Amino acid sequence: MSVINIQEKFKLFSAHWSPKKIGELNGQQVLLAKLKGEFLFHKHDKEDELFMVIKGSLDIEFRDKKITLNESEFYIVPKGVEHKPIAKEEVHILLFEPLSIKHTGNIIANITVETYESI
Amino acid sequence: MSVINIQEKFKLFSAHWSPKKIGELNGQQVLLAKLKGEFLFHKHDKEDELFMVIKGSLDIEFRDKKITLNESEFYIVPKGVEHKPIAKEEVHILLFEPLSIKHTGNIIANITVETYESI
Repeated sequence: MSVINIQEKFKLFSAHWSPKKIGELNGQQVLLAKLKGEFLFHKHDKEDELFMVIKGSLDIEFRDKKITLNESEFYIVPKGVEHKPIAKEEVHILLFEPLSIKHTGNIIANITVETYESI
Repeated sequence: MSVINIQEKFKLFSAHWSPKKIGELNGQQVLLAKLKGEFLFHKHDKEDELFMVIKGSLDIEFRDKKITLNESEFYIVPKGVEHKPIAKEEVHILLFEPLSIKHTGNIIANITVETYESI
């Protein structure tokens, strides 16, 4: 177990839409991701998912609304709710979610990452 | 479910060593706390606990070492490990931990908070 510096971890990767694992506890994981562009609508039937913006601005579209998260803000997407992250400019986010979660939930796409690399 | 702004939430309380709940997901909770001074050695037999510093600097003493967390750093204290947070100056932290966790773990003290207020 060591001290994790979030800013240092962000320097270790550049790929978009490819979450990296930086911590694990109680069956949950802490992930970092860099996003740019549009993701696809998907849902996680059994897992709530927390999106926290570290740098930049992130939109999340739902079927009935859209929210915007700025630095130091987070939103918990409840299980079963379809959502589509959109980053007009590159955004750095932290995710907190169960180890069991799948990247694109109920959808399999070219963008889908099967296993999150630990950094 | 609404967008949570961490800085705005910190403006809503001033008491030290009294965590406030700002989110709940997958049987876990997101807490904010302001710390100043020394806590007591305690452990959580069944829960890992994540300490993230939002503002300031936090020392955590263990029986065999001491770590320092600065802004944008976190540390996961594994279940069963005795730890003692120390804040020489006021520090603002975010905690990720299970809903089942008890404030002072295996110890009951004057400082113990039984139920975390949601803000």
